[in-house]
Amino acid sequence: MTAYDDLMAFQRDTEALAQVAGRLGWDQETVMPRGAAPQRAEEMAAMESVLHARRIDPRIADWLAQIEPAALDAVGQANLRHIKRDFDRATRVPADLAARIARVTSAAQGTWAEARAADDFAAFAPTLKEVIALKREEGAALAEGRGIGIYDAMLEDYEPGTTAADLEAMFGALRPKLSELRAAVREAEAPPVLEGAFDEAAQMTLTAKLARRFGYDLATGRIDKAVHPFSSGSGLDVRITTRTNALDPFNCFYSTVHEVGHAAYEQGIDSAYLLTPLGRGVSMGVHESQSRIYENQIGRSRAFTGWLFGEMTAVYGDFGVPDAGTFYRIVNRVSDGFIRTEADELQYNLHVLLRFDLERALMSGDLQVDGLQAAWNDRFEADFGYPVDRPSNGVLQDVHWSVGLLGYFPTYSLGNVYAGCLHEALREAVPDLDEALARGDTSAATGWLRENVQKHGGLYEPRKVITRACGKPPTEAPLLTYLENKFTELYGI
Amino acid sequence: MTAYDDLMAFQRDTEALAQVAGRLGWDQETVMPRGAAPQRAEEMAAMESVLHARRIDPRIADWLAQIEPAALDAVGQANLRHIKRDFDRATRVPADLAARIARVTSAAQGTWAEARAADDFAAFAPTLKEVIALKREEGAALAEGRGIGIYDAMLEDYEPGTTAADLEAMFGALRPKLSELRAAVREAEAPPVLEGAFDEAAQMTLTAKLARRFGYDLATGRIDKAVHPFSSGSGLDVRITTRTNALDPFNCFYSTVHEVGHAAYEQGIDSAYLLTPLGRGVSMGVHESQSRIYENQIGRSRAFTGWLFGEMTAVYGDFGVPDAGTFYRIVNRVSDGFIRTEADELQYNLHVLLRFDLERALMSGDLQVDGLQAAWNDRFEADFGYPVDRPSNGVLQDVHWSVGLLGYFPTYSLGNVYAGCLHEALREAVPDLDEALARGDTSAATGWLRENVQKHGGLYEPRKVITRACGKPPTEAPLLTYLENKFTELYGI
Repeated sequence: MTAYDDLMAFQRDTEALAQVAGRLGWDQETVMPRGAAPQRAEEMAAMESVLHARRIDPRIADWLAQIEPAALDAVGQANLRHIKRDFDRATRVPADLAARIARVTSAAQGTWAEARAADDFAAFAPTLKEVIALKREEGAALAEGRGIGIYDAMLEDYEPGTTAADLEAMFGALRPKLSELRAAVREAEAPPVLEGAFDEAAQMTLTAKLARRFGYDLATGRIDKAVHPFSSGSGLDVRITTRTNALDPFNCFYSTVHEVGHAAYEQGIDSAYLLTPLGRGVSMGVHESQSRIYENQIGRSRAFTGWLFGEMTAVYGDFGVPDAGTFYRIVNRVSDGFIRTEADELQYNLHVLLRFDLERALMSGDLQVDGLQAAWNDRFEADFGYPVDRPSNGVLQDVHWSVGLLGYFPTYSLGNVYAGCLHEALREAVPDLDEALARGDTSAATGWLRENVQKHGGLYEPRKVITRACGKPPTEAPLLTYLENKFTELYGI
Repeated sequence: MTAYDDLMAFQRDTEALAQVAGRLGWDQETVMPRGAAPQRAEEMAAMESVLHARRIDPRIADWLAQIEPAALDAVGQANLRHIKRDFDRATRVPADLAARIARVTSAAQGTWAEARAADDFAAFAPTLKEVIALKREEGAALAEGRGIGIYDAMLEDYEPGTTAADLEAMFGALRPKLSELRAAVREAEAPPVLEGAFDEAAQMTLTAKLARRFGYDLATGRIDKAVHPFSSGSGLDVRITTRTNALDPFNCFYSTVHEVGHAAYEQGIDSAYLLTPLGRGVSMGVHESQSRIYENQIGRSRAFTGWLFGEMTAVYGDFGVPDAGTFYRIVNRVSDGFIRTEADELQYNLHVLLRFDLERALMSGDLQVDGLQAAWNDRFEADFGYPVDRPSNGVLQDVHWSVGLLGYFPTYSLGNVYAGCLHEALREAVPDLDEALARGDTSAATGWLRENVQKHGGLYEPRKVITRACGKPPTEAPLLTYLENKFTELYGI
């Protein structure tokens, strides 16, 4: 056994234990008896403590010191890159700070939920101040001596290799164009809305068919219901959840397709990487690129919605939509709203960009928590053209900040940008894609994504994955072109 | 923080991690995608390795050395007793022996399953020889220097405080009486058998009602289907499984009631003991006493089956059984068979006693694996009066030996003996119990068991739990009296 072998054997157990901790999360959101919550919190904390001890295990430093990277192949070097970064990250944060963050964010989620229910930002503000202070302390520890900013250091947790400046450049170009397009769409005549009630058991049957159509492998996966849909697990056990609402079957179908995008990524990774650092999606941005291209560029395309219209007609009979063209317009309807997670693909990024700017200001100290609600409301009205009616529709709508996720929001829009790039390259590689999509056959699209993105897992850095797949570095331009083409045509602008 | 506090904080995390490992087992048997098996094996092994490292952690010895037991209250002393015994047990077995046992038994289960499917004992014998040799080595390490036998040392894993000699005395008295009663029953006229098909979804609805009737708390539990019913978890997350067979609804109902007995024990433990060594059922024998008294003495009583007859009639209409009296006789029908898990309460212990005698002989070296099949077949024919027709109905029917469970079988019959004692005491304490049971109200019975057995968890040694509850030490006599009364009356002998 060489030092590399020893390190990888140790890492393999860590990866397996991380999968176990993830499964506990799945269990909690799907099947756990509600009365088990207090015990589950202790079980999760015990698992986290085991994982933390392994992440800072001093043997890792010894092994790393003994390994000569140049003697390793590309896979070995990529493994080493991940392990080094994770070890550096874990050992930079003092144990007592990590413990304080864990304690405060664990309680903060409950405080946030109560404040949101009461529509009372002031009830959450003191807790959020604590979280922000601790995260700034953590960011400073992560950035120390590296000549990078606190926010850049936090971004690394979700999107290594991408800086705040990279995102500012992309998002800065995106925002005015999206606003302009959105204004034109709001002027134009809106498509109708879907009416009627749709049996929920039948939604689940059709959603399972959709999942299979998008290549989700149920031999190593399963579909359950959860309040907030998510995908969970890597390797041979990748589960998704969805939800049903009799009045809104699209919520079920497109939640499923979104989560299948995440799950197909995990299922598509080269099986040689199982339980290694390469055996997981490489970043949140690349992950989101898969869920978004499945959901939007493929799932909400004219061609594919034509097939879905036929499927819904087969299940529900005449459900009040006269033809596939109208169905396509209904699926892609742009509506006013407050909530990020309910936003359509045209407006979604405006929600994210708002959060990106506010959280950078919170991290830098340019914005204080006491001024956050006003800043949110001002920015929202400027971007959307109508005022926030209450905090639960504004600054209190997302859980992220309460649990210490700062630097996470921008990966949603980065994922959309990446999806735009990948979609452009996919259409070039598969010119007759729409013919297949119109038959409900996504295999050419999902096959191309598997081959060019998914199978690599963590082998390449996130930005390189996209650059290799597209033959050029990612920019916001393809996403903008796609949205402009789609919505000017759809709205007859 | 005193040494005792430190030790208990460490132990609390160990208990939480053991619950996590148990939940993985539940997941595997109920919801896990089948393709996840290879990854799950690595996840389980990683958890086991974490738990093993904690069980032999040298800090435990330091803490134990610093603690003055006399300064602790009864709960503290009981915690210490469990922790000392577990630490002693874990550190007596050399690491390489533990690893070999884990490796061999992990593979042996598959070999056993294949041999059973092929009805070929010779295909399993070499593997079983390895298992027996390793378990003898382990037993010798556990017994060394303590003046106890290998088999006594193995019994401690499941039933601390009970020796092979104790069991020999009980079972030696049980066997001839059971054989005699069984012979008389076989001479008498048999009740009819249940005929027809029973909707399986309706079985699940009724089984959930049964579970609630027996006090199973679904706020901290849930019911799923599994191939082999089991109960799993402690504290606030105690789950059961059952199975359905359209031709045999009693299999579903009484599997459920049996598992509810186990689960109610875990749910009934004083909540102050959560995630401590006292927060789990104290032994396999006491556990089985709860499942058996729920299933048999209560669930198969004339009074309770009268209520169940009404419930089945409400669900299935006229299902071909004319009255509650006939229903009672059908539920308690004594039938010829080969399989322990399918045996009725009269014959069940004969199956167990056979295994107890054979496994002691294997452990002592009086019986070799090569002679095991013949020894099994001879003993079976002597006890049951007809020959074993094939190995899957004989020596290959149980998984236990393949996975290294030696010393486990007798706890099944010990549980029945304990159930007999508890039932006698319960009937004295609640003279009008049958009136309540006839209304489907088990609360007087389950309440008495909770108060006198379940709530104590691991506070007292197993035998002491039963002795305290009954006001006298356990013997086989009450079980024999109960069985004699029940079956002579039922069969009109």
